[in-house]
Amino acid sequence: MSDPKSLRDRVFRANLDLVANGLVMLTWGNASGVDRQAGILLIKPSGVDYERLRPEDLVAVSLTTGVVVDSGPWVGTPGLRPSSDTATHLALYRTWPGVGGIVHTHSEYATSVAQACSGIPALGTTHADYWHGDVPCTRPLSAAEIDAGYEEATGAVIIERFAAEGLDPLSRPGTLIAQHGPFAWGASVEKAVYHATVLERLARMFVHTVSINPLAARVPQHLLDKHYGRKHGPKASYGQDAG
Amino acid sequence: MSDPKSLRDRVFRANLDLVANGLVMLTWGNASGVDRQAGILLIKPSGVDYERLRPEDLVAVSLTTGVVVDSGPWVGTPGLRPSSDTATHLALYRTWPGVGGIVHTHSEYATSVAQACSGIPALGTTHADYWHGDVPCTRPLSAAEIDAGYEEATGAVIIERFAAEGLDPLSRPGTLIAQHGPFAWGASVEKAVYHATVLERLARMFVHTVSINPLAARVPQHLLDKHYGRKHGPKASYGQDAG
Amino acid sequence: MSDPKSLRDRVFRANLDLVANGLVMLTWGNASGVDRQAGILLIKPSGVDYERLRPEDLVAVSLTTGVVVDSGPWVGTPGLRPSSDTATHLALYRTWPGVGGIVHTHSEYATSVAQACSGIPALGTTHADYWHGDVPCTRPLSAAEIDAGYEEATGAVIIERFAAEGLDPLSRPGTLIAQHGPFAWGASVEKAVYHATVLERLARMFVHTVSINPLAARVPQHLLDKHYGRKHGPKASYGQDAG
Amino acid sequence: MSDPKSLRDRVFRANLDLVANGLVMLTWGNASGVDRQAGILLIKPSGVDYERLRPEDLVAVSLTTGVVVDSGPWVGTPGLRPSSDTATHLALYRTWPGVGGIVHTHSEYATSVAQACSGIPALGTTHADYWHGDVPCTRPLSAAEIDAGYEEATGAVIIERFAAEGLDPLSRPGTLIAQHGPFAWGASVEKAVYHATVLERLARMFVHTVSINPLAARVPQHLLDKHYGRKHGPKASYGQDAG
Repeated sequence: MSDPKSLRDRVFRANLDLVANGLVMLTWGNASGVDRQAGILLIKPSGVDYERLRPEDLVAVSLTTGVVVDSGPWVGTPGLRPSSDTATHLALYRTWPGVGGIVHTHSEYATSVAQACSGIPALGTTHADYWHGDVPCTRPLSAAEIDAGYEEATGAVIIERFAAEGLDPLSRPGTLIAQHGPFAWGASVEKAVYHATVLERLARMFVHTVSINPLAARVPQHLLDKHYGRKHGPKASYGQDAG
Repeated sequence: MSDPKSLRDRVFRANLDLVANGLVMLTWGNASGVDRQAGILLIKPSGVDYERLRPEDLVAVSLTTGVVVDSGPWVGTPGLRPSSDTATHLALYRTWPGVGGIVHTHSEYATSVAQACSGIPALGTTHADYWHGDVPCTRPLSAAEIDAGYEEATGAVIIERFAAEGLDPLSRPGTLIAQHGPFAWGASVEKAVYHATVLERLARMFVHTVSINPLAARVPQHLLDKHYGRKHGPKASYGQDAG
Repeated sequence: MSDPKSLRDRVFRANLDLVANGLVMLTWGNASGVDRQAGILLIKPSGVDYERLRPEDLVAVSLTTGVVVDSGPWVGTPGLRPSSDTATHLALYRTWPGVGGIVHTHSEYATSVAQACSGIPALGTTHADYWHGDVPCTRPLSAAEIDAGYEEATGAVIIERFAAEGLDPLSRPGTLIAQHGPFAWGASVEKAVYHATVLERLARMFVHTVSINPLAARVPQHLLDKHYGRKHGPKASYGQDAG
Repeated sequence: MSDPKSLRDRVFRANLDLVANGLVMLTWGNASGVDRQAGILLIKPSGVDYERLRPEDLVAVSLTTGVVVDSGPWVGTPGLRPSSDTATHLALYRTWPGVGGIVHTHSEYATSVAQACSGIPALGTTHADYWHGDVPCTRPLSAAEIDAGYEEATGAVIIERFAAEGLDPLSRPGTLIAQHGPFAWGASVEKAVYHATVLERLARMFVHTVSINPLAARVPQHLLDKHYGRKHGPKASYGQDAG
């Protein structure tokens, strides 16, 4: 991922894919990708329409300082501000070295579940294929946390939740923010978009499932392990590259 | 907004955008825009198919008299009658000087919530980004009010509700009419369409949220203020024009 | 409606509009139109894919005998059988002289409400604009009725319901068949398609409304009368042709 | 079905139709067809994107040994692995000689009902037209069954359920796998796709129906028999080929 031009193109395409996959309406979403060697993330500019977005509009931000970088290979459209959620992206990249891309949306059903202050229990094998357990939901932020720095605090509360339960972010590639909406991530920005797409579908199926069976049970651990293991890890048997 | 030709084009496009945004089927909707200097509003003609609608079909109506104006720059297709909801639009424009455009639809979920005689509680940050509090729902009209002038009364009951609670129409840019459907508005006709689009999405998410958590709580005041303030007012930080 | 060629084209287009309006998947629907002077109805052939349907495939059936007519201006594609629901269409045309077109579909939400053995209460003004009261639901057929002639019995039970309550079929232009699905009709085949489209939307909104408020009340009689009267009858004020 | 080239084209088209019919997102589905004379099934390769899928990518597998066949008329793209669900397809083909095609998807509503560990009761005539009784749901697999061979066990539990109740797979052309999703089948791969499409619609309508009437009753046996008999068997009267 050392070619800045290529990263710009990929993050640009990922942002458009959020719209194509039905996850974003209006300007409600953003995707970012990171260049760990250069210590830079590229992210959608704030409030820019997806129809008008161009690759050169993506804003480069320093992973260490959080400041916009606009020189050398990272030069972009002058004066654009990064997404208002940039501080949340930064917090996650800094804490989780394996994460290469992050997506935030207000996709309809994932946001609805977040508004219910619920996570998504692992009710079936579709879920188990991608999340090795429930999709968590963060605790609400206090007024003091919001005042002190809302977007940083959003990142902190995600990290707090994963740390408290010892969750691996790469085997639970997304979460819900209480009363807000979903964040998803992955080893690359393409995988982050993929996981955001899966997350919305899991949220839809969760809503439908509990509408006919409010007591629907989680899949047993052995089925969760079987399906997650079919797609991930040393015993993966799914796809053309599996061992 | 002093160029009548431009206003006609903008209101025309706004009406078509209602269809493109999935808010209107058949002829169930109308958008209007106002020229405050000229004292004129332009509105969709009654019962005309959106596929056949042309800019010159929009009907000009005097803000003061409510009578159709068809001369000078306001000349349109001869003989077309304005939307049957024109009296409601007039009432809102007359009372709220900051409103530049109004939209009425029977969009599926907002209408369903209106049929339930419920407003939309502020359950999440998507809501807080645009409505600084709940989306209100009006009280039902009495038989006498309906007989005396149904469409005027619909406007009056909206205004009554906002006045009784001291609500600012620009920070609550839309309402539900009990057993009827949504009205949305904004500083321009484009913003009215935008708010009608957001309102339908908020209604969808409200229905989904309470289907899994009937006791879902409103966002706390500090989160409501934070999100509304990110997008509006002196401390706005969202988008490229924010201070 | 005395030009057989024109009726064939109109009924053909009406059948395609069922698909375009999202009311029909696979072969699950049929539209018919009647020529009262000639004593003939034209209806979709049974089980023919909509993508392959041609105007000449529509089958002419005698209103009096129910037998396929295939001569003179009514000649069609040799050997095609009419829709298996033809006997239901015949029963309605014979009983209700003002009906000029009939549509049957298995549209998703109207069928779901029919499966619940429920009608659709008049919960809002969208409903009141087209049905001057609830959308009825028929009683179930007995085993004996089904054996003696299922499709005729389906027509009979619709007619029984409307007669028992003195309902005017033109001011309630459609019904649900318990455990089956919707029938809609109108003065023309185009209006029948229109009413089938409205009926599906009313069913969707009914499902959403009761999901958040199971006790949602019907509109009061004065609001029902007001909205129905805006669009129909001597005091109609909606559209460009209203008095 | 003795022309291998033709079978390849048909199974290829069937796989694409799963996407076109809205049953599959990402790579979540597979269709197979069988050549009983040759003792071969053709199935989608594992994890290959539908947009890139070519007819020659379908993998031939021996019905008797379950081993990939890649010679003579069955030669395909070198090295591709068959769907991870192939063992389930094999089990069904081996047990049910009348089955010519099988489809597995994670379609949204059928999967949601499966997550609720529920079958789909025969609530209406749309259901009765294709399933001569409820859509069954399998029992959960034990940890031991999953360890011993998950995909084979999935087939075995379907077969166990049909055998225990004496169900005819051709008059109940699909089932739900508890906590997993739907399998559908038919005399040909085209019919398998058709039944998978119907199954998703039945699941949608089941969810909507019980949302307004949790006590919705099954259709009585005489109506079930009437509708199933209109479309299937010696007294069929639906379509142009009926006796």
